[in-house]
Amino acid sequence: MRIAIDTMGGDFGPRATLRGTASALLRDSQLSAILVGPQHLLDAELDSLPASLSRVRDRLQTLAVDGIVASDARPSRVLRSREPSSMSRALGLVAKGQADACVSAGNTGALMALGMREVGRVKGVERPAICAAVPTRGARACSLLDLGANVDVAPHHLLAFARMGAMRSRLIDAVARPRVGLLNVGVESVKGTAQVQEAHALLAGSESDFDYLGFVEGGDLFSGKVDVVVCDGFVGNVVLKSSEGLAQMLSAQLGATLAASWRTRLMAWLARPALTRLSRELDPVRYNGASLLGLASVVVKSHGGAAAEGFAFAVTRAASEAREQLPSRLAQALEGTYSR
Amino acid sequence: MRIAIDTMGGDFGPRATLRGTASALLRDSQLSAILVGPQHLLDAELDSLPASLSRVRDRLQTLAVDGIVASDARPSRVLRSREPSSMSRALGLVAKGQADACVSAGNTGALMALGMREVGRVKGVERPAICAAVPTRGARACSLLDLGANVDVAPHHLLAFARMGAMRSRLIDAVARPRVGLLNVGVESVKGTAQVQEAHALLAGSESDFDYLGFVEGGDLFSGKVDVVVCDGFVGNVVLKSSEGLAQMLSAQLGATLAASWRTRLMAWLARPALTRLSRELDPVRYNGASLLGLASVVVKSHGGAAAEGFAFAVTRAASEAREQLPSRLAQALEGTYSR
Repeated sequence: MRIAIDTMGGDFGPRATLRGTASALLRDSQLSAILVGPQHLLDAELDSLPASLSRVRDRLQTLAVDGIVASDARPSRVLRSREPSSMSRALGLVAKGQADACVSAGNTGALMALGMREVGRVKGVERPAICAAVPTRGARACSLLDLGANVDVAPHHLLAFARMGAMRSRLIDAVARPRVGLLNVGVESVKGTAQVQEAHALLAGSESDFDYLGFVEGGDLFSGKVDVVVCDGFVGNVVLKSSEGLAQMLSAQLGATLAASWRTRLMAWLARPALTRLSRELDPVRYNGASLLGLASVVVKSHGGAAAEGFAFAVTRAASEAREQLPSRLAQALEGTYSR
Repeated sequence: MRIAIDTMGGDFGPRATLRGTASALLRDSQLSAILVGPQHLLDAELDSLPASLSRVRDRLQTLAVDGIVASDARPSRVLRSREPSSMSRALGLVAKGQADACVSAGNTGALMALGMREVGRVKGVERPAICAAVPTRGARACSLLDLGANVDVAPHHLLAFARMGAMRSRLIDAVARPRVGLLNVGVESVKGTAQVQEAHALLAGSESDFDYLGFVEGGDLFSGKVDVVVCDGFVGNVVLKSSEGLAQMLSAQLGATLAASWRTRLMAWLARPALTRLSRELDPVRYNGASLLGLASVVVKSHGGAAAEGFAFAVTRAASEAREQLPSRLAQALEGTYSR
């Protein structure tokens, strides 16, 4: 299992992506990686790998390319420019069968656009979607899609998102019969836009290997009562980013609260291990990566601000999806979805 | 200043609404209230008012009506039924000039529909919007609208929402020049749907007494860098409910984390006052009520699950808006908004 790594994505540069990759390889002896980026930067980082990580050195290859996709580049411009970049070459390795999956912490729009061009879409998928998990009060996380690839969607796209999310939940999260909900402003059948009304009819009427729960509300995302929640990319993006913002604010407030008096300062000191764990749980999306579901090969986006640990989880996520051959299983599952 | 109270809305029944009203009157000697609901329930609650609250007894009148709007009733059905209810009679008091504002913890859709019928809209407002505040890392809360009154909106509605939210921010929150943002999936000008693109052009091109910041993302809601955020009611509803759900989950996780060992249990005990304060800050929307902006009189919705304290804040919110004559000031501000 070989993962192509776009080492130049993300705010932390090649150090975080390279060390994250090495951490993932350390945990999984069957994994190897091709690091794509400017050779001198890769060499410098490989030479300065901590001893604990240098044990995986022989499973790390490099592929030299100097071009970089800027984090604020417009996808349409990235597509027009034919200049090779760490992102396009990493995707190209997957397209040519020289790697099994690709991980990048770069510009999401560019990754989706270049992914469509380089590896293409699963047969039957009009619109690939971005899928990530949010934590819940239940035993399992909840997958949310689309997170921003498609700001305008038709009802049949929402049906396809449900099938893709459910398939991923079954294969990767081992949920035998995923519970799938359609995000709306209320659970009553008369609520919402014409778009969600029609998608609801499609979902309720289609044969499926998941449990369609009908409409769910924003609060249900974190309740643990649903495994996959489907929405258009505008709503999903805003919900995800606002949840991250809220979690960060609450984390800061909690710190301020605990620093407010000697009693609570003592407490904060005593509680440091627990709070460190908690603050990680606050923002798991940052740690686990997002899948570009519907591309013909496995492509995982790591959070742009991810440090090494988060990138390691994204590499592990990509390896799991590649092992389960998620794209070809999606192709089977989606056969017929678009036959309207 | 007299507030009409729909005592029968909300999950906690007339006890919470009545005691909340009394608390608000205790804090503001210029306030009085007309309690609308079944006479025997009101009498029973008035008789059992705690001593601390019974001091305001002479500023509490009652208006007997037995009908109740069910929390899951469809607004269209509520409108068709001409049976009087505590909600419709409370709104009627405002319409007839016998009260200055109305507060209800009942069915939001029914409150908006009955509000449109009983008190009407501000001249120039096609679509009233629901507006509430979320906490931020900054000095002030951020007003978000629409929260669900309009799941489909045209670009010029978003412009009107911006004007209404900014006016409320200036008059009620005393923000001299509110910073207003349009919610989108990215801050770059090319992002988003045709709807937000057109609304952006309208907002950027219109003269205003607020600072239009352009597009903002979900995470900006809680950052403190914007005072008013505008979106359609589908997005606003989902964001608000997901934020509430996340805050509740994190609160529960925090409790579990602190209960995990003797060290942290001791700590939780020491920290109880601080944590109580924090858990309230976690969910301020529940405590402050939401304004139905664009109705011709002040109508405030208290959270359906609100206990007495939350209802008291909603009453205070309604009194502030009525004192500042928000509806007629909105009428002035909106003049010309719809002249396309």
